[in-house]
Amino acid sequence: MKHLNRLISGIFLITLPWIVSGQGSEWTEVAAGVWKIKAGNPDDFDLFKAAQIKPSLEALTKLGNSPFPLKPEKINIQIIDGQTYLRFPLEKEEKIFGFGLNFKSVYQRGRIMELHVDHYGGTDNGKTHAPVPFYVSDLGYGVFINSSEYIKVYAGTGVRKSSRDSPEEKDRNTDRSWSAQPYSDAVEILVPSGGVEVYVFAGPTMLDAIRRFILYSGGGPLPPRWGLGFTQRVPTLYTSSQVEGEAKEFEKRGFPLDFIGLEPGWQSRSYPCTLEWDTIRYPDPPAFIRTMDEMKIRLNLWTNPYISSRSSLYNRIVPFTGSHTVWGGVVPDLTIREAMEIFSDHINKKQINIGIGGYKIDECDGYDNWLWPDVATFPSGKTAVQLRQTYGLLLQRMTTDLFRRHNLRTWGLVRASNGGGSSFPYVIYNDYYSHEDFITALINSGYSGVLWTPEVRSSRTAEEWLRRFQTVCFSPMAMINAWSSGTKPWSFPEVEEDIKRYALLRMELMPYLYSEFAKYHFEGTPPFRGMNLEPGFDFKTTTELRNTDQEENPYNEAVIKEIKDQYMTGEYLLIAPLFTGQKSRKVVLPQGKWYDFYTGEFAGEGEVITVTPGLSVIPVYVKDGGIIPMMKPSLHAPGSGEKYDIEVRHYGTRESSYLLYDDDGETFNYEKGIYSWRELKVTKSKKGEMSGSVSAAEKGKPDNIGKITWKFMTGR
Amino acid sequence: MKHLNRLISGIFLITLPWIVSGQGSEWTEVAAGVWKIKAGNPDDFDLFKAAQIKPSLEALTKLGNSPFPLKPEKINIQIIDGQTYLRFPLEKEEKIFGFGLNFKSVYQRGRIMELHVDHYGGTDNGKTHAPVPFYVSDLGYGVFINSSEYIKVYAGTGVRKSSRDSPEEKDRNTDRSWSAQPYSDAVEILVPSGGVEVYVFAGPTMLDAIRRFILYSGGGPLPPRWGLGFTQRVPTLYTSSQVEGEAKEFEKRGFPLDFIGLEPGWQSRSYPCTLEWDTIRYPDPPAFIRTMDEMKIRLNLWTNPYISSRSSLYNRIVPFTGSHTVWGGVVPDLTIREAMEIFSDHINKKQINIGIGGYKIDECDGYDNWLWPDVATFPSGKTAVQLRQTYGLLLQRMTTDLFRRHNLRTWGLVRASNGGGSSFPYVIYNDYYSHEDFITALINSGYSGVLWTPEVRSSRTAEEWLRRFQTVCFSPMAMINAWSSGTKPWSFPEVEEDIKRYALLRMELMPYLYSEFAKYHFEGTPPFRGMNLEPGFDFKTTTELRNTDQEENPYNEAVIKEIKDQYMTGEYLLIAPLFTGQKSRKVVLPQGKWYDFYTGEFAGEGEVITVTPGLSVIPVYVKDGGIIPMMKPSLHAPGSGEKYDIEVRHYGTRESSYLLYDDDGETFNYEKGIYSWRELKVTKSKKGEMSGSVSAAEKGKPDNIGKITWKFMTGR
Repeated sequence: MKHLNRLISGIFLITLPWIVSGQGSEWTEVAAGVWKIKAGNPDDFDLFKAAQIKPSLEALTKLGNSPFPLKPEKINIQIIDGQTYLRFPLEKEEKIFGFGLNFKSVYQRGRIMELHVDHYGGTDNGKTHAPVPFYVSDLGYGVFINSSEYIKVYAGTGVRKSSRDSPEEKDRNTDRSWSAQPYSDAVEILVPSGGVEVYVFAGPTMLDAIRRFILYSGGGPLPPRWGLGFTQRVPTLYTSSQVEGEAKEFEKRGFPLDFIGLEPGWQSRSYPCTLEWDTIRYPDPPAFIRTMDEMKIRLNLWTNPYISSRSSLYNRIVPFTGSHTVWGGVVPDLTIREAMEIFSDHINKKQINIGIGGYKIDECDGYDNWLWPDVATFPSGKTAVQLRQTYGLLLQRMTTDLFRRHNLRTWGLVRASNGGGSSFPYVIYNDYYSHEDFITALINSGYSGVLWTPEVRSSRTAEEWLRRFQTVCFSPMAMINAWSSGTKPWSFPEVEEDIKRYALLRMELMPYLYSEFAKYHFEGTPPFRGMNLEPGFDFKTTTELRNTDQEENPYNEAVIKEIKDQYMTGEYLLIAPLFTGQKSRKVVLPQGKWYDFYTGEFAGEGEVITVTPGLSVIPVYVKDGGIIPMMKPSLHAPGSGEKYDIEVRHYGTRESSYLLYDDDGETFNYEKGIYSWRELKVTKSKKGEMSGSVSAAEKGKPDNIGKITWKFMTGR
Repeated sequence: MKHLNRLISGIFLITLPWIVSGQGSEWTEVAAGVWKIKAGNPDDFDLFKAAQIKPSLEALTKLGNSPFPLKPEKINIQIIDGQTYLRFPLEKEEKIFGFGLNFKSVYQRGRIMELHVDHYGGTDNGKTHAPVPFYVSDLGYGVFINSSEYIKVYAGTGVRKSSRDSPEEKDRNTDRSWSAQPYSDAVEILVPSGGVEVYVFAGPTMLDAIRRFILYSGGGPLPPRWGLGFTQRVPTLYTSSQVEGEAKEFEKRGFPLDFIGLEPGWQSRSYPCTLEWDTIRYPDPPAFIRTMDEMKIRLNLWTNPYISSRSSLYNRIVPFTGSHTVWGGVVPDLTIREAMEIFSDHINKKQINIGIGGYKIDECDGYDNWLWPDVATFPSGKTAVQLRQTYGLLLQRMTTDLFRRHNLRTWGLVRASNGGGSSFPYVIYNDYYSHEDFITALINSGYSGVLWTPEVRSSRTAEEWLRRFQTVCFSPMAMINAWSSGTKPWSFPEVEEDIKRYALLRMELMPYLYSEFAKYHFEGTPPFRGMNLEPGFDFKTTTELRNTDQEENPYNEAVIKEIKDQYMTGEYLLIAPLFTGQKSRKVVLPQGKWYDFYTGEFAGEGEVITVTPGLSVIPVYVKDGGIIPMMKPSLHAPGSGEKYDIEVRHYGTRESSYLLYDDDGETFNYEKGIYSWRELKVTKSKKGEMSGSVSAAEKGKPDNIGKITWKFMTGR
């Protein structure tokens, strides 16, 4: 790859006497459009090392070359007294996004954060479940700080004496234009370490920069097909027969169900955990798992990683654990290979070997009063902070690798992740239960290379229940988490049919969603993402609009303001949820024509519309030319090799095409090329009549698609 | 002093290979009951250095010797990879207090904090205006971490594998006694520095440990007598003639007034500041100050320390300023002597020389979005963090020293302080405006060696106005801050007379308050403090009570729970404020008899009473034998050498005595011994009749007290 290892010269690394200069103090292109610099002496442990990333170099090459996206001389890196000071420039109108799983804000310029793996506490201050040290700019580049320290970020707040764009000094006594927060022209970052690796990702678009970040981390995970089905988590003390009863009830009532989550009660002891079956509630796990398997239901097991002294794992793991306990359980130092192997061996024998499909890994995020303190020490010599920032990554890697040994994909839940974890088949969740903020988190997940589920737990009203359910169906994991509430999809009879309809719509969308996840894996495109990543969204792209004043065109104002209550699912679907109490809402439709998903009717273009969809409907819009491959409503995902018919919907009036992904849906054989992309193509005759065609699967490649029918949703 | 430099041997400083061992790795007694250890290589800048403390060694000697109050082998200090790990033991029932100006909690055991000078944001997480790294234990000792880093504190939360008091492991699935926060037997502290100085202060009582901490910091400040009078801060754009008008209005209406605070508008520009008079609003400052002085009104000037380029100070100070600006103003590096001198020189010439009495130093606390970022650098080479943690101290020291050059005391307001700052004549304030939490802060100020005012700004109702006013009269600074609201004491006419009565009561109490402040200075006893410091408060001291169950005696429960809504003012007065909406409240009266301040009636002893005082009254109780010297209601504090009559009130039935302090009330001559303590003594005749006597002032010592009358408040 000829573009690799090109050097950017002119790097502005001030080398004052007290500055330790890094060995490779120049930006090195390490993959197409990915540059790295090593400043000072970085810690010997970092996020990428914790995740053991395997960059998707070929996919990056396919994305193409792009010049270094910043002026290197405007980047400043200094190491002073054992700390690394970083500064990246900001232009006047530039917007930045990212810095992990924020719940309240999408625009990050002007924010101050300490990136700290933590329970989200209601403020976007860097303490969150995935405080990924990555940001992207709408000027089309991304920056990643590869550090497992607590990183302090000033995202356009600090004003330097020496700044070329110094704001004008004003007198607060008399000048009404005085501002408490004068203009800042830089992102400034403090890494409490004597060095750090920094990466810059080129565009040209913001989405390209995100793609490069995700591909460099190994690409997004490809879920097993069943992972995209519906999942129910049962009350914590359920027994195996109650779980079987639950599955039967779903079947009987006609609700889809692909996997069931068992909560702490499956274990003989929890908080701390034995990671062993409770012999009363689960007398015969292998038989139970077989029974469930026959019903086409996988099982997912809750756990936290703190090991009880009553576990057979305890004596083996205890030499590799930290100084402090969590709920009395020991904390494995998973940076030690042997600790990871002992832990893996235990869960492999007890659970994975007998057919468990995945885990929900809880409590690896904090909060402070529960987790090990920063004064804890670990046998590897890594600090408590390094372990805290990476524990979610380490647990994901351990379990992912274990399933890989079985050549089986998994799809799980995790409460903490971080930069480098993009490729892990885990969806983040938490206890914070604001529906609105859950949607903002879904948007932000797309900027940070992680996945997030706005899980449904309980609701005060049928309205809230349905509104929450509608959105979780357009998320990486369609889940009810009834561990404490005991809710079922039919808990509110007055909306039971609506719930069922959306649960089944989720199943119908599986070919589309699966293809979009394949694009996440192969191309780095996040399947759930914010409006600012839509090409037609930014009004600046349309000269006419730029010249129109905002009173005349409210769209301008809408796209300047944060949009944090609508998002894209895959290439074509725009989801605009309603929240409890809302009867109508505004929807910002980007440039280009948009159509109602349910009816195919034209909805608008480059404008703000107000919709009153009724409680039964979550507004969904499709981009002009949108092609949505759908399967029949079904209670379970197609199994490996199982044929399924599809109906391909086309929206709008444009000719277009869509790539439909297919493979066995369960194994890693796709990594050996055993998958197919089939082109769904819509053309228009001279008379304006639409017709669809599909390319054949390559010989010897997966071909699970049965009958294909076409449905042109928008009349002429 | 023979007790100095005794060494405690047996210090348990583990010296594993990776641990940098300190030079003086033993506890050294540096003053009576004060031990110090130097672990590793501490930063060459710390809180005590910033404050330039002058320990009151003689007063400490007077407090007496006391053995090292902890088992040294239970203290663990390690330095690992450039960070210092500290661990101090906790006993089962031990309570700890302190860690600075917390607003919501009094008991600190179980809290996790990062001590960080900051605007208080509504959570006791260490981010506050005075995050003093000092705690005291009810077992009678104190610990101080002399560091200007952000210190992480786990005050009894972490549980170590190796703990001797490990909590029992429990199964959350089935054991209802499972707890999310198992028992912890240690305070653990992480200092992000390769070494640190730690101090331990002996008791025997908790109050003694606090006294030692304060005395080691130089003793509390002795205010000028006028500092204890009433102060009004005027609207920001007031002119000199408006200020004169305000003073006249106070006089006319019969409201006391000792000093007026001028807000930003006195300066020619603010945010950033010129620290120069605005020539339109204040055309002739010397004449204005003289006029005010004739009216017995001092002036206090608001400022922040960020210097405008339009100030004549700018060019001189700019070489000594940090990399970043605040509101466009430069940030003087006040750790550089020259910077401090240039700054001092400017304000001396422009303000102090012409008679200004003090400053209100704003915005030296944060919050993050305003202050210099942690990535800022300073010409001294000190870090942004070190400057942040000490900026309030540095500003207090600079101004205190400047007034001292004039041999004049000052009394001011500051928004940030820290450990070591106890001796500075400054009272902390902030924008947070919860009346309840302001009282909790007042209580906590007493545990941390700082002063706090629950200032009154505005109120929605007359009730709130009066309730707030009642409490601020029992605080270090009786103030209305009307900079924005323009309120006056008489703003709510329906309670004007009540307000006036409390303003005048404040003046009447001046001899008592002044004496209590003298005890703060000479003996280290905080004049405002929490109930847990009252000798008769803890039920453990009374065997009978310990053996009584809580249903029978609610006092037991009351003293186990946090008491954060009542406090002591000086030796004898217990203040129990009511808050808006409250018609009645519970008051916890410690062991020993208590009497109503207003009537002298017996109120209770070692019990919880419920009182319904009416809006006009703030409940105040006096300890049995309480002697309260009061002067006549008066509009101004007595001037230097001015005689004043006192009425001495005695409460209860005990014989007792009280030390009344006297000096010139304005200068530092008391440091040369020019002060007097006079004993007020109450004796009982055989018939049980009370009488009072007073010792004469020593010859040549101040004697400003005129006629003394006695009032025995409690009948037989």
